[in-house]
Amino acid sequence: MSHDKATVRAILDAVKLAGRESLTAPEGKRVCDAYGISVPQEGVANSAAESEKLAIAMGFPVVMKIVSPDILHKTEAGGVVVGISNAQEASKAYQTIIENAKKYKADATILGVQVQQMIQGGQEVIIGAVTDPSFGKLVAFGLGGVLVEVLKDITFRLAPATKADALSMLDGIKAAEMLKGVRGSDPVNREALANLIVSVSDLVNDFPEISELDLNPVFASKNTAIAADVRIVVDFVAKIPRYRPPENEVLVSMKRIMQPTSVAVIGASNENGKIGNSVMKNLINGGYKGQIFPIHPSASEIMGHKAYKSVKDVPQEIDTAVFAIPAKFVAGALIECGEKKIAGAVLIPSGFAETGNVALQEELVAIGRKYNIRMMGPNIYGFYYTPSNLCATFCTAYDVKGSVALSSQSGGIGMAIIGFSRSAKMGVSAIVGLGNKSDIDEDDLLIFFEQDPNTNVIAQHCEDLKDGRAFAEVARRVSKKKPVIVLKAGRTLAGAKAASSHTGALAGNDKIYEDVFKQIGVIRARSLRDLLDFARGVPILPTPKGENIVIITGAGGSGVLLSDACVDNNLTLMPMPEDLDAAFRKFIPPFGAAGNPVDITGGEPPLTYKNTVLLGLSDPRIHALILGYWHTIVTPPMVFAKIMVEARDEMRAKGIDKPIVASLAGDVEVEEAAQYLYEHGIPAYAYSTEIPVAVLGAKYQWARGAGLI
Amino acid sequence: MSHDKATVRAILDAVKLAGRESLTAPEGKRVCDAYGISVPQEGVANSAAESEKLAIAMGFPVVMKIVSPDILHKTEAGGVVVGISNAQEASKAYQTIIENAKKYKADATILGVQVQQMIQGGQEVIIGAVTDPSFGKLVAFGLGGVLVEVLKDITFRLAPATKADALSMLDGIKAAEMLKGVRGSDPVNREALANLIVSVSDLVNDFPEISELDLNPVFASKNTAIAADVRIVVDFVAKIPRYRPPENEVLVSMKRIMQPTSVAVIGASNENGKIGNSVMKNLINGGYKGQIFPIHPSASEIMGHKAYKSVKDVPQEIDTAVFAIPAKFVAGALIECGEKKIAGAVLIPSGFAETGNVALQEELVAIGRKYNIRMMGPNIYGFYYTPSNLCATFCTAYDVKGSVALSSQSGGIGMAIIGFSRSAKMGVSAIVGLGNKSDIDEDDLLIFFEQDPNTNVIAQHCEDLKDGRAFAEVARRVSKKKPVIVLKAGRTLAGAKAASSHTGALAGNDKIYEDVFKQIGVIRARSLRDLLDFARGVPILPTPKGENIVIITGAGGSGVLLSDACVDNNLTLMPMPEDLDAAFRKFIPPFGAAGNPVDITGGEPPLTYKNTVLLGLSDPRIHALILGYWHTIVTPPMVFAKIMVEARDEMRAKGIDKPIVASLAGDVEVEEAAQYLYEHGIPAYAYSTEIPVAVLGAKYQWARGAGLI
Repeated sequence: MSHDKATVRAILDAVKLAGRESLTAPEGKRVCDAYGISVPQEGVANSAAESEKLAIAMGFPVVMKIVSPDILHKTEAGGVVVGISNAQEASKAYQTIIENAKKYKADATILGVQVQQMIQGGQEVIIGAVTDPSFGKLVAFGLGGVLVEVLKDITFRLAPATKADALSMLDGIKAAEMLKGVRGSDPVNREALANLIVSVSDLVNDFPEISELDLNPVFASKNTAIAADVRIVVDFVAKIPRYRPPENEVLVSMKRIMQPTSVAVIGASNENGKIGNSVMKNLINGGYKGQIFPIHPSASEIMGHKAYKSVKDVPQEIDTAVFAIPAKFVAGALIECGEKKIAGAVLIPSGFAETGNVALQEELVAIGRKYNIRMMGPNIYGFYYTPSNLCATFCTAYDVKGSVALSSQSGGIGMAIIGFSRSAKMGVSAIVGLGNKSDIDEDDLLIFFEQDPNTNVIAQHCEDLKDGRAFAEVARRVSKKKPVIVLKAGRTLAGAKAASSHTGALAGNDKIYEDVFKQIGVIRARSLRDLLDFARGVPILPTPKGENIVIITGAGGSGVLLSDACVDNNLTLMPMPEDLDAAFRKFIPPFGAAGNPVDITGGEPPLTYKNTVLLGLSDPRIHALILGYWHTIVTPPMVFAKIMVEARDEMRAKGIDKPIVASLAGDVEVEEAAQYLYEHGIPAYAYSTEIPVAVLGAKYQWARGAGLI
Repeated sequence: MSHDKATVRAILDAVKLAGRESLTAPEGKRVCDAYGISVPQEGVANSAAESEKLAIAMGFPVVMKIVSPDILHKTEAGGVVVGISNAQEASKAYQTIIENAKKYKADATILGVQVQQMIQGGQEVIIGAVTDPSFGKLVAFGLGGVLVEVLKDITFRLAPATKADALSMLDGIKAAEMLKGVRGSDPVNREALANLIVSVSDLVNDFPEISELDLNPVFASKNTAIAADVRIVVDFVAKIPRYRPPENEVLVSMKRIMQPTSVAVIGASNENGKIGNSVMKNLINGGYKGQIFPIHPSASEIMGHKAYKSVKDVPQEIDTAVFAIPAKFVAGALIECGEKKIAGAVLIPSGFAETGNVALQEELVAIGRKYNIRMMGPNIYGFYYTPSNLCATFCTAYDVKGSVALSSQSGGIGMAIIGFSRSAKMGVSAIVGLGNKSDIDEDDLLIFFEQDPNTNVIAQHCEDLKDGRAFAEVARRVSKKKPVIVLKAGRTLAGAKAASSHTGALAGNDKIYEDVFKQIGVIRARSLRDLLDFARGVPILPTPKGENIVIITGAGGSGVLLSDACVDNNLTLMPMPEDLDAAFRKFIPPFGAAGNPVDITGGEPPLTYKNTVLLGLSDPRIHALILGYWHTIVTPPMVFAKIMVEARDEMRAKGIDKPIVASLAGDVEVEEAAQYLYEHGIPAYAYSTEIPVAVLGAKYQWARGAGLI
């Protein structure tokens, strides 16, 4: 498609010069022409006779509209007449429109009346672009009409949107079927529509001063997609871009912070109950092997480590400084850190923006920028990095090593992460508090965890994204390599209000988060437990190689609920091929049900579970298994658990590794069996059919987003 | 509204006599007239001239349609012409329609051409009625148009529907806003629409032979609601009604079964591992105080109880017989039970309909009916009734008494219920297995639990309802007194397929279950964990007296997620009145946020939690509290838990009792605190913001349905 930037530049310059905030319809048409956006034939008439002539030339029916920079809402002003079917009507419409416009706004500058070919038929759709404070330019797509407005059935993508993005938008609305042709109507031309979306996306991306754009309606037919009306709003006030260091610099700093060879504790204390005491204990008891430098105004030694008055007195290099001093002393100590060339400051203290003390926080930001210190917080619990046995926090130590890195914006949620992790023996590589996010935020963490060999999955809780655009850029790349799971709090208006009172952050339009997360391959957790369960289960599952899932269950009732859960989580139950059905039937009682779910029935011995699971793993048509276990005397929970791990290991030895999840129905012994299975790489849940399937669903969502299936 | 049953009777009789399966348009109009359903003016023309005359009399525009019992799909046959605007067009339309009809079906009987006033404007809607195999007659409502069809935006109610039901349907579709007038259009006449729905509902209720009815479209305007077309399908084959004993008889039997003074164990055994041995152990070790009669072909004593060859040999009366013998012996033993006048048979054995042995199960049903024995199962784990210390099951004993009665159709789900209950120390009055539901089903249980003083909440898992109509009738009444929570498995097509392979039951249309449950006040659990969490939490919550909810949180981050959860669960965060805001602020640090959530901030001592909660409980404008606890050294978990119970008790002593739920964020100690809170009447959950709010939401949903708020 032709992109005539010079023409658009000239039009926008003229609009800017005239001090206008929007384009006239003819200007809009010229912009569309410049970007290959199809619009109807049209012309501007300055007399009734001229309108007749134009209309006859382009063919009836036509629409006529007022052209005036002073009249933005043309319909409201009585400035639009549709369905004009002959010359006489055109002449009359011209007069009516001019009269109405004068009545509506006596001093309006009237540039004429636009005569436009009236496009009808096909499906009415809307294509638009908006500017989001966090994500920047977004394109939007939806059906036209009031009903769609009522149902808020619209979808967004970050601009620039690719052709694939655009095509996904056509399937991304609830009413997608309407575009495929229903009740005998023709399907729309998907190519033409997608091209239109891409052109709009390119346009707003090339010209950031276009703050809003609406093609409404677009008539999408079998052959074409033509925008019947265009509205373009501009904003020439330049935005100050957020400060973002280059990624290589981010990485250098983040490595020093997360994997320090030495840590200073500013405000270290021998006194029990003090935060500086807890931090020291955690560093020492957590087993950190690097050097620890307590900083204290008077003490010569703290907990067996030589203490210093200032970081500047420490003879060696320091990577990370953990702050455990009152807010008012932070700025001073931070300058010393800067002078000492410390890479990062972990700002535990509160009393900054979250308590209204915005100025004090801004002071820290300025110091950090000046000395190139990256800051975590303030107002945080600190962070854990288990591969280094590093517990730089006042909470208790955490020692179950694993491959998921978690972070939270809120301290309370961070505590819930720590508690759940410990309780569920979740294997963790890092837990990081981000708090006020004065500096380090989610995308900095992503840049570090992307290359961290100890981290396979990244799970983040956030209330806002200070720079959604930057997050999206990094997350889109990282999510191709490692699953990125995000719990975005403040989803609802009430939640957003609470978020804004909590952190001073304005929550974005949730639908935008929803769609952008999908676009960039981020898995969205719907609840805190989902975040935690996904963080725990997703890293230990191998990546599926295809969509075919088989349920093998001892409890028919579980089979039904597991099937429901598959649908809820967008998973495909493989239609069972006849030969495979027969193969399964060999192992199960005659009254058991093959098909999918494979119902082996309740009274079966361990061998039946094993044989059917081995078959499920070995048949190349099956890509993942969901197990429904039913506690019986014949196959007790731990016997089941052990035989499942055996079966999986046998197949792994043959080079076959497929995701398996399990739902365990039974008495309390199933909890131990579930834990055993989890610790051996099979996410398993007692008393739940929905959680194991949701975890598998999250893994699938990631694999699809990363293009692996 | 006039209900002229005689006219409808006569029309239907004529249709039956003619062997037809549907009504002609004029017949449909007469039925509508008889039930006060507004339809356009119309007449039948038998010549072009007559059609002109009729059209002139009723005024243009008109629609003309073929009238033929042999042509049901009029449009397809070219038998419909719309928008006829003058006499000449009418004459021409007459000829076209007759010609098309003859082309479509040469031998069709043509009764003439209907000329009908063309109603336009307003909102097009659809009102209909269907016959569901389980629920019987249902009325349906939705907007007209293809888009609505694509979005499946339709809502159902059991017929007969009340005016209130009908009004709720107008709000029950996703596009409800369309009826209220959007973008300057008029709102519809809600009264007129609701009356139309009620008339349709009355009609199908009065005449069960009407199997389907469609008013499509109905034009709903500011003043009226007129059905532009009616389609009525009939089915004169009489349905055999399901056998239902009178409710007083059900209750007598159910009381004897659930609260027996004596229990026989048919197939009792001294041998470990046998089901008859497990049942004996559970009865004895469970502490059952009634008489236990082991039945065994040869033993003289089993586990210290005198054994008998047959129940008929037992000298005393027996209320309940638990079967632990192979399927093939069940029928014989059941006859003996009948002769002994035993009230109920608990049929643990499998090997009946679930394994394809339908005939054997039907034999049991016949015996049960003959001797008036009510049967639980077959193919079940048995049941628990804790107030009588009765464990009539082969699973392990259960002893945490409480007020929730649970049941499951599936044995596996039953085991999950038992395991969860034990693990979470859930207070239970009963757990019942229903299995194949040859006889006793969900509505029988409801009838018993309705009057059982030991049961306050009823929670049921089911895959199908054999008689949805009977369930609805009972549940509608019971749910006014006690919350009824149902997990309907087989929600999705895949799930329904699995259900049908599992139990031979066909899952109903899920949207019908969804709407009927709402109509009758049943709380629907979306997942197994939801069922279990609601069963555990709802009974211990007092009933709220109003919709105003306040969140009090130490963790701002929890406040955000709790607010999201309130919206998700249809709960109202009270806008904080100024005086109350000021009152809260007195207790919290200056940087804490009042408003709602009340954010007391993280570092506060127990007294801050207590003071704010006392204020929340004492202010009469607040009806329920959601607490967000954040684990700190200053207020450890158990200290928080105890002080919350104290605060609640202080207010209870003053006669104030409001629902409180809590979300606990912290290290593993919060689990103990959550358990303590639960045991003291405050549902509390560790590491979750969504579960406590969902539990509160379930209580609210019940209270609203029962008309208590």
